[in-house]
Amino acid sequence: MQPFNIHILGCGSALPTRKHQPSCQVVELRGKLIMIDCGEGAQLSWRHTRLNWQNLTHILLSHAHGDHVFGLPGLISTMGLLGRQAPLFIHGPSSLEPFIACVLNEFCCDLGYEVHFDAVDSTSHRLLFEDRSMEVWTLPLRHRVPCCGFLIREKAGLPHIRREMIDFYEIPTWAINNIKAGQDWTLPDGTTVPHTRLTTPADPVRTYAYCSDTKPFAELAAWIENADLLYHEATYAMSEATLADKYWHSTAAQAAQIALKAQVKKLMLGHFSSRYDNEEILLTEARPVFPNTILAQEGLNISL
Amino acid sequence: MQPFNIHILGCGSALPTRKHQPSCQVVELRGKLIMIDCGEGAQLSWRHTRLNWQNLTHILLSHAHGDHVFGLPGLISTMGLLGRQAPLFIHGPSSLEPFIACVLNEFCCDLGYEVHFDAVDSTSHRLLFEDRSMEVWTLPLRHRVPCCGFLIREKAGLPHIRREMIDFYEIPTWAINNIKAGQDWTLPDGTTVPHTRLTTPADPVRTYAYCSDTKPFAELAAWIENADLLYHEATYAMSEATLADKYWHSTAAQAAQIALKAQVKKLMLGHFSSRYDNEEILLTEARPVFPNTILAQEGLNISL
Repeated sequence: MQPFNIHILGCGSALPTRKHQPSCQVVELRGKLIMIDCGEGAQLSWRHTRLNWQNLTHILLSHAHGDHVFGLPGLISTMGLLGRQAPLFIHGPSSLEPFIACVLNEFCCDLGYEVHFDAVDSTSHRLLFEDRSMEVWTLPLRHRVPCCGFLIREKAGLPHIRREMIDFYEIPTWAINNIKAGQDWTLPDGTTVPHTRLTTPADPVRTYAYCSDTKPFAELAAWIENADLLYHEATYAMSEATLADKYWHSTAAQAAQIALKAQVKKLMLGHFSSRYDNEEILLTEARPVFPNTILAQEGLNISL
Repeated sequence: MQPFNIHILGCGSALPTRKHQPSCQVVELRGKLIMIDCGEGAQLSWRHTRLNWQNLTHILLSHAHGDHVFGLPGLISTMGLLGRQAPLFIHGPSSLEPFIACVLNEFCCDLGYEVHFDAVDSTSHRLLFEDRSMEVWTLPLRHRVPCCGFLIREKAGLPHIRREMIDFYEIPTWAINNIKAGQDWTLPDGTTVPHTRLTTPADPVRTYAYCSDTKPFAELAAWIENADLLYHEATYAMSEATLADKYWHSTAAQAAQIALKAQVKKLMLGHFSSRYDNEEILLTEARPVFPNTILAQEGLNISL
């Protein structure tokens, strides 16, 4: 299977701590890199990965709170210094436009590449963009300001050739791609061998859902149903449920309930409040609801 | 002596590395904290110090290059979240005003304290501000954009009381402060004891000079003469002298020449280009010119 990895660069919330960086992660799918949120220090954390700047094509920003975007100026500048030429596409709520325009005007006059900002409608669930490898969908979240989650769905690959059948029928190499694409094969005696006999099905498509920041709401489950991995904010433990409600955040148990309802395969909790020295409390509260739950942490790479 | 410490939070240059953060340092003088430059990650590095946010009153920004200011949005926001109420004074070239205004408008609507921006004239050497403890002077530097160094000079303290003389003349406690302030003491028999007999001189005043970013120029030496510590950028080694000239930076040897000419007590090199895995080369080139040279590094605290 082609790599589909999630690299966690930061999973803290507004107040940085010695343990956590602000929100930032990088999705690696078939060699392409998509950054989701870009908290302060994103470029510094990136330096500790083996990811290649050149492969970063899109940045998805959930909302206009500093802990999700203050890494952007440095990241844009540094890629310029490193000689980037390929355009960079940034997607996020329109409220981010003045900030990005200011950074480009004040600090990026001689940037060697183009930055395109795409104002995302954070009120509807729709296809944001797609390419040969993936579809990226918006997930309208419910936070104090316009906020958008993202769902990244791999596109179906081609079926796998059954090497032993190809050998058996002595099918030439030039025909392989046609067979993978769905063409049957005709033997010298005129008999047709259906392509389904010559192949095994393509790998199942994988899906990643990023939901931060948001209060819990049941409608979300339908959009992220069966996702292989759900990253859901769990800013607070149950004892701070009132705060979670007041600030439009979620508790770990609420995140787990969404995961359960959506029947995702795995839940990763993140966006931790700085009040927890140890986030095990969040895991303890989530797992009774949804057992396959893990905690995000800086440096964690998850393969779907 | 009252503490006069320099805390290095970052001493890299434009491209961050695994070793160095972008420019940021904190000057601690008689309990007050002044930040000089605020590269990305400043607030994150601050978390690793024992410095108290509440004591930070001023931020001095040298120039409008991202590696000197991209930590500002996060720092301002975080102090707001931490409940800061005291005003914060930011000084820097006027070219920084649109960026700071944008950050305040877009992300700091409910900030609980005031941020005052003071556009500094980076073309003249003049007193920027003073209080009971210090004077802060501008140092007009020569960089590709308007750029300003800073000189922080401690104000003279009071002389020290000679305890044995006070006891000998049986001088009451209430008179001590007057004597420190320069009043003589009259004995019961009418004899005058001059205050200079009752005190030893105040501690010598100490001076710190921050010069980054700049190409070398001889006039600088007069403004920073006899400084206890000079932080001077040394972006390049001698082999990159052409680059240093092209980008209006200095080599380590050039920084050492300024230190020598200004007869400062100690030179600290910083603003290292990312090309050096090991900055010993810079030290090797500076010390033959000015022996009392050290390299800045993150986490280094220097007491003057």
